[in-house]
Amino acid sequence: MAKDKPSKLKARLPRGLADRGPAELAGTRAMLDTIRRVYELYGFEALETPFIEYTDALGKFLPDQDRPNEGVFSFQDDDDQWLSLRYDLTAPLARHVAEHFQDIAKPFRSYRQGWVFRNEKPGPGRFRQFMQFDADTVGAPTVAADAEICMMAADTLEALGIARGDYVIKVNNRKVLDGVLEAIGLGGDENAGRRLTVLRAIDKFDKVGIEGVRDLLGEGRWENPAAKSGDFTKGAGLDEGQAQVVLSMLTPGGGEFLPASNTYLEGRQELDEIEALVNAAGYQGRVRVDSSVVRGLEYYTGPVFEAELLFEVTDEKGRPVRFGSVGGGGRYDGLVGRFRGEAVPATGFSIGVSRLAAALTALGKLEAAAEYGPVVVVVMDRDQTGHYMGLVKKLREAGIRAEMYLGNPKNLGNQFKYADRRNSPCVVIQGSDERAAGTVQIKDLIEGAKAAAAITDNAEWRESRPAQFECAEAELVEKVKDVLGHHGVPYGEARG
Amino acid sequence: MAKDKPSKLKARLPRGLADRGPAELAGTRAMLDTIRRVYELYGFEALETPFIEYTDALGKFLPDQDRPNEGVFSFQDDDDQWLSLRYDLTAPLARHVAEHFQDIAKPFRSYRQGWVFRNEKPGPGRFRQFMQFDADTVGAPTVAADAEICMMAADTLEALGIARGDYVIKVNNRKVLDGVLEAIGLGGDENAGRRLTVLRAIDKFDKVGIEGVRDLLGEGRWENPAAKSGDFTKGAGLDEGQAQVVLSMLTPGGGEFLPASNTYLEGRQELDEIEALVNAAGYQGRVRVDSSVVRGLEYYTGPVFEAELLFEVTDEKGRPVRFGSVGGGGRYDGLVGRFRGEAVPATGFSIGVSRLAAALTALGKLEAAAEYGPVVVVVMDRDQTGHYMGLVKKLREAGIRAEMYLGNPKNLGNQFKYADRRNSPCVVIQGSDERAAGTVQIKDLIEGAKAAAAITDNAEWRESRPAQFECAEAELVEKVKDVLGHHGVPYGEARG
Repeated sequence: MAKDKPSKLKARLPRGLADRGPAELAGTRAMLDTIRRVYELYGFEALETPFIEYTDALGKFLPDQDRPNEGVFSFQDDDDQWLSLRYDLTAPLARHVAEHFQDIAKPFRSYRQGWVFRNEKPGPGRFRQFMQFDADTVGAPTVAADAEICMMAADTLEALGIARGDYVIKVNNRKVLDGVLEAIGLGGDENAGRRLTVLRAIDKFDKVGIEGVRDLLGEGRWENPAAKSGDFTKGAGLDEGQAQVVLSMLTPGGGEFLPASNTYLEGRQELDEIEALVNAAGYQGRVRVDSSVVRGLEYYTGPVFEAELLFEVTDEKGRPVRFGSVGGGGRYDGLVGRFRGEAVPATGFSIGVSRLAAALTALGKLEAAAEYGPVVVVVMDRDQTGHYMGLVKKLREAGIRAEMYLGNPKNLGNQFKYADRRNSPCVVIQGSDERAAGTVQIKDLIEGAKAAAAITDNAEWRESRPAQFECAEAELVEKVKDVLGHHGVPYGEARG
Repeated sequence: MAKDKPSKLKARLPRGLADRGPAELAGTRAMLDTIRRVYELYGFEALETPFIEYTDALGKFLPDQDRPNEGVFSFQDDDDQWLSLRYDLTAPLARHVAEHFQDIAKPFRSYRQGWVFRNEKPGPGRFRQFMQFDADTVGAPTVAADAEICMMAADTLEALGIARGDYVIKVNNRKVLDGVLEAIGLGGDENAGRRLTVLRAIDKFDKVGIEGVRDLLGEGRWENPAAKSGDFTKGAGLDEGQAQVVLSMLTPGGGEFLPASNTYLEGRQELDEIEALVNAAGYQGRVRVDSSVVRGLEYYTGPVFEAELLFEVTDEKGRPVRFGSVGGGGRYDGLVGRFRGEAVPATGFSIGVSRLAAALTALGKLEAAAEYGPVVVVVMDRDQTGHYMGLVKKLREAGIRAEMYLGNPKNLGNQFKYADRRNSPCVVIQGSDERAAGTVQIKDLIEGAKAAAAITDNAEWRESRPAQFECAEAELVEKVKDVLGHHGVPYGEARG
């Protein structure tokens, strides 16, 4: 047995992983319910895939793919095949659709919600396990599907309480980007790696500004450019003329360098169509074309989207903070095709649940956990445990959250301290006197705290025993309901 | 890009893992909500731990520990420390409590729900990823906590719709078992392994019967004892007298061999107390002492519980099937202590969500997914996409699930086939004639299916165009609501 072991284990979590308590869980649950309601209204159906997949089925499409063995948690199965924890919800969807291709009604519209895992360097607010909520349409070739998903993203943010004007769904097109890159001589398979480096440079525009992007398109960029210190990110090695073409996409009205390749024109045409559709549906301004959107994942083949929050909040140090991107996605016509040898049109959008939850919390829009804990029945006489449990049972049967104190009952002070820490609305007390008289004492802890706050003298407080009263045991449930009702503490089936 | 790759990948899942569709997900969600409501009524609070933990923090307490490297999915972190996917929700709770011991109000009453992973040989109904729903009380030394958790398990099964008499919560005590084993000379650390083998033999009583247990207590048992074929499980090697003492525990009234060790007497005393508490609270018969309950996990130190369903259903071949155990648990005073060098009393109960869901499905008690799919607006004129999307938007704004057909619209038959496969209640059609007239056609597919079933002649069916009518476009929402209302298809905010 464990107690025989000489050395103590250290209780700790691997970095980038966290436990979650009742407030966060209740808030997230309410948020997921809202997202689910919107997605179902749009005709999307629930799907869930397992956490473990064959590594080759997931593929390596992470931004970190320069380090091919990193980014993903992998391990070998009994039969030596490599397994990985899913790193997003798109690659498993592609596997699911390909596996059941004949049985699935297409277009296949599914939503999926769950944890994904990245074996990356964790940091503040950057976890190795985080939650995504995705919706995808597979088998829809036209940009109507892309436009719809962008509008759904806007509806979702509004359903969650984010005001119109406080968010925008930005749309761009990889074909436009690819067309530009072709025009400056970066077409063809042999330049795939460099194209990706350029795309990721553009993707950093929000973070590093136009000069930062210029560095990343050229030789590279220091983490602290002024001091030339910190990490150095190698650039794409474009010459000045090439870089200028790329940068022109990021500056308003900077379209003079636009190339006339078919890819480019097709991309622009698609963006125009999306714009027309969202405007016709009344989403102008909420969904709009923005040439700085790239998305880091390699598998996108057409329109790409990003949901950005525009409002600022102040952090604990009083500095203004923007939440920025809370989701994104795009068209990935090649991902299902990896399994089928033919392109299968598909587009999707993924919400970063944890980041959006943080934003909603800052806005005060995230549903909180129950403010008060359960009613606590204290244990005065150990041999009356069965009777106290009976009192608790009566409260529960009336829909009132309740429990008997289950720690060592010797110290009555500890029992009250426990009720305080659980934020109990009231405590039920029955000693031998009360039992003989068929009564119970109810101590209203909410009232008591108010009274205590008003009374400065400690002795006086003890004397006054604020908000404690006696009632017949038969009246227990009604009297506790009175206390809860008086303070607006919810109870009964409605809570569930 | 993928399309350049010469060879196709095979889309498949590793064995023992499965995708889940809308019906299963909706049913499970409703079930989890009910369990949560009961647990919160009892004063338990939500907690969630990550899927990945340090391997040493989880410990090796699985029944499979004879093969120490199996049972758990493990992999190394960047810093070479071993990580594992959690195999239950108890070991991570112990880590959490030990890590935050000073900050936690004790007794700490928490519930946790989520997926766990076992790297075991999968089989029918036996998955490598499955869901548990646990409740635990840490810091409660007396059996009142054990009794409470058993009563909560009973309440939970009834809240889920399982009738009284269709289930039982069986209780036993490891101390009783240990006392018996001491009495037959299996006390002491040096016999820990053999004790575990004996316990696991008893644990198989329900499956292999008294003769099977006798074999497992002695030399061992063949998977097919008559033919002496299949896998051979090595036994505990007890002699006949020792085995007889153990077997006497499993036979009603077979208490003549009972030993008088302190451990045994303490165990019996605890069982008596639990019995008194559950009887006083009106749970007699629902929670009862049963000496065949063992639980396979090594870490239990006192009372152990098992929730068993008693009713039979018939399988697809008409044979009667019992669901048997749908949950279990017990007291594990040493598990938190591994981190602290002192025993910390703790007890808990774990529901096997998937198995219980299967049982509820068989009983018809699991909430189903929405019966009907979304209303489908078909695309007659491709250049009217924006207008069709507007119709869809109006329906959604009225709380009606709706979508525009997003596949290739060329073939109208495919669009209707899609609506059929989605089980759409109705389809909205607007060609150029209707558009010119400011009308739409609504085709009631539910009515249509009924009519089609009544009509045997194909030509007649085509002629009659059952259940299709025209209305002004401005009346679309009201008319669709009529169709849904007529068939009892829910819509509006209430759905969420």
